[in-house]
Amino acid sequence: MKRDAPLRSFIDHKSDMCESDGKLFLNEAFSVIMEEILHKGTDSKEKVCEWKDPDQLRALLDLDLREHGESHEQLLQRVQDVARYSVKTCHPRFFNQLFAGVDYHALTGRLLTETLNTSQYTYEVAPVFVLMEEEVLRKLRSLVGWSEGDGIFCPGGSMSNMYAMNIARYWAFPQVKTQGLWATPRMAIFTSQQSHYSMKKAAAFLGIGTDNIFIVQADESGSMIPEDLEAKIMQDAVPFFVNATAGTTVQGAFDPLNHIADISERNGMWMHIDVTNSVTWNPHKMLLTGLQCSVILFRDTTNLLMHCHSANATYLFQQDKFYDTSLDTGDKSIQCGRKVDCLKLWLMWKAIGTHGLSERVDKAFALARYLVEEMEKRENFKLVCKGHFVNVCFWFIPPSLRGKENSPDYQERLSKVAPVIKERMMKRGTMMVGYQPMDGHVNFFRMVVVSPQLTTKDMDFFLDEIEKLGKDL
Amino acid sequence: MKRDAPLRSFIDHKSDMCESDGKLFLNEAFSVIMEEILHKGTDSKEKVCEWKDPDQLRALLDLDLREHGESHEQLLQRVQDVARYSVKTCHPRFFNQLFAGVDYHALTGRLLTETLNTSQYTYEVAPVFVLMEEEVLRKLRSLVGWSEGDGIFCPGGSMSNMYAMNIARYWAFPQVKTQGLWATPRMAIFTSQQSHYSMKKAAAFLGIGTDNIFIVQADESGSMIPEDLEAKIMQDAVPFFVNATAGTTVQGAFDPLNHIADISERNGMWMHIDVTNSVTWNPHKMLLTGLQCSVILFRDTTNLLMHCHSANATYLFQQDKFYDTSLDTGDKSIQCGRKVDCLKLWLMWKAIGTHGLSERVDKAFALARYLVEEMEKRENFKLVCKGHFVNVCFWFIPPSLRGKENSPDYQERLSKVAPVIKERMMKRGTMMVGYQPMDGHVNFFRMVVVSPQLTTKDMDFFLDEIEKLGKDL
Repeated sequence: MKRDAPLRSFIDHKSDMCESDGKLFLNEAFSVIMEEILHKGTDSKEKVCEWKDPDQLRALLDLDLREHGESHEQLLQRVQDVARYSVKTCHPRFFNQLFAGVDYHALTGRLLTETLNTSQYTYEVAPVFVLMEEEVLRKLRSLVGWSEGDGIFCPGGSMSNMYAMNIARYWAFPQVKTQGLWATPRMAIFTSQQSHYSMKKAAAFLGIGTDNIFIVQADESGSMIPEDLEAKIMQDAVPFFVNATAGTTVQGAFDPLNHIADISERNGMWMHIDVTNSVTWNPHKMLLTGLQCSVILFRDTTNLLMHCHSANATYLFQQDKFYDTSLDTGDKSIQCGRKVDCLKLWLMWKAIGTHGLSERVDKAFALARYLVEEMEKRENFKLVCKGHFVNVCFWFIPPSLRGKENSPDYQERLSKVAPVIKERMMKRGTMMVGYQPMDGHVNFFRMVVVSPQLTTKDMDFFLDEIEKLGKDL
Repeated sequence: MKRDAPLRSFIDHKSDMCESDGKLFLNEAFSVIMEEILHKGTDSKEKVCEWKDPDQLRALLDLDLREHGESHEQLLQRVQDVARYSVKTCHPRFFNQLFAGVDYHALTGRLLTETLNTSQYTYEVAPVFVLMEEEVLRKLRSLVGWSEGDGIFCPGGSMSNMYAMNIARYWAFPQVKTQGLWATPRMAIFTSQQSHYSMKKAAAFLGIGTDNIFIVQADESGSMIPEDLEAKIMQDAVPFFVNATAGTTVQGAFDPLNHIADISERNGMWMHIDVTNSVTWNPHKMLLTGLQCSVILFRDTTNLLMHCHSANATYLFQQDKFYDTSLDTGDKSIQCGRKVDCLKLWLMWKAIGTHGLSERVDKAFALARYLVEEMEKRENFKLVCKGHFVNVCFWFIPPSLRGKENSPDYQERLSKVAPVIKERMMKRGTMMVGYQPMDGHVNFFRMVVVSPQLTTKDMDFFLDEIEKLGKDL
């Protein structure tokens, strides 16, 4: 009893921040967030980014973590600074990535998720979200055309693709889970030259090795050439996985899914992103849910996802619980704690319905078509190819290069145009769009139209601004 | 030009939700979040959870996703419902997981991150966060005692552990990235019987296979027995990876790190969580940043993380950018888009300093000690072992079993106590704590003390409540 009093008083006199101060800070910070990011950040008259070189920015931010804490006012200023110097991905002129814009219901779902701060592994700690994930997955599968199957939300599309590859491998060689790849023949993966680099990351991470990816040729528009897939299957490794892409990263091309499905079936391969075995779907891109919201769907009904990934941890997945433990879905994941990623999509869907979501997609396609038509009217824009999707890939041909297509240094000079325009754009902060070289094509811009807040005026501005930034080149 | 006008008018007349309605909804939802989760949810007089059976809850939530959207009022009611039926992990009586409580600065960081909605892959889209992650990683390494090294934030501790295993494998056999495991000898992983199940998930996912994990025995308190590690190394597989645990999941035990480090070094193995090669650190647990915030730190200075994981995507990681492209750290990750997980930790650290963080840890240790001392005063609590950490593992011995230790069905009857108490607890909603069996010990409770808002009164309540719930058993 003697030690009791001091221990009790040590504990109860440790004053952590009091609840009311914490709530006050959160409330004031929320006002800063509303003003600096959501009011100013979505205003086309404001900058997309306030560019600072890394050294300047380090000095401005004072990132150093110290022994003692700071005052309420200093901390609010830090919230202000983080907002100010961050890129406004919700800005109508942010075209740099496959995500852009803001949906206020999805954002509400994200704030609600962060505040509830739970993990998606068991029904007892995430009752609402286990049921909600189940329903959202069911709905997404039904849109793919599957009346049954499985699925899970993953931390991003690359992870979703890794899940697909791992499940396919387990389906082909179930002994891999226990005995490893030393107990299987060498395996081969097929994917197009235009597919996403996550295939390489997955092959390396899963221990299959990037040399066992066989790259299938794509046509000019970026679609996989099925004849080349068929020709490449004759290898000494066992073909087990074909990755087809519906909307490539740069060109937005669609692989010929039916044709590839036939080839996969004939060769006993798992086909990913198709109507055959699995699909990766990223609502955090064109559907605006915000990062991260990526789903992997499986047509499988044999519980492969659980068999392949389960580790049966007794401290989480007790079998003597008082409720239906099939709702403890956490063992399907390769993670333990798993963020709730379904709520933002669900709330947005409730808010605008399937109809509203499809209208957004229609509008984005129309905007991309409008942009292409406008480009064709201007002599200094040249399309890389006619796109299939909301990606518009083009070169800006500056005055000095116009009509010089046949001069020997034309390609080399053209390759330097996009980086210079990008640098000027970033420093002015007016908009953001990405560029890249690709298969013998020198640097070109990839414009991506996803935000439903955009109008044709924004497309006109985009073209005018590129011309303005490159007029002296 | 003829098609121009209809396309333009189709686009510009598509009315998505207007900005001001969206902001209004977000503001009102934020008030609900403040009231329902942060006011009520942290009030010990309110319930931790409002338990509903899955079928009841499905009916209450109306999860179905429909063709058309809903009204402002209906949607606000949905926010209310999600908050109401979700578990309040910020409640002072939530002891069910290794995370609990709320830090308002970390939460501010999370809301700011969600609203800024960017990906951590390049400096151009995440200038503040690339520099911030660099600084936070530097600080965490310095606390581990490393003046240099590398590291990355991962989507959870299981993923951090997978990173460690993959980097260790690449370090031992760099050809694995391109040629896969068929080009290497069989490898062996060593980890204690008390280590986290993510080791199994990692071995399976990486293609090594769970049979190649060699389980090292732990003592009664949960610490790895180094002599058994040494004995197990004599295998025909190449030993390449030892996982040591600093704070096991159930007992909170610490493996003897120095001793294991010596053995690893003698056998040329990579040691994870130690002072040798890599450390997984989860600020989303005891430091209260909220899910997800997990870091993997490497002592390596040869850029292994980049060499092992890079895929060199030209559309993201252009080498002709106008700034220092070493700041485009995205290719170190196995993800493409990667959520910003550093801001919440950074803002909280700025707010309370290293001093404030360490005070919280001290307080949690004191609370755990207090709880143990109080348990020892009560005849119906029995400790599984004296803990090392903030986990307190114990049995509640109900009146009917007191003094019956020698009866043949004692263990079987004791194993049923925790599930019944847990069910009653969930249905009353007064608190949440987990239970599990372990290595010949029947079901026992694992109490975890992490929230700095707790006082000795909460510990007293905890003991009284368990007694109340089990008094008729």
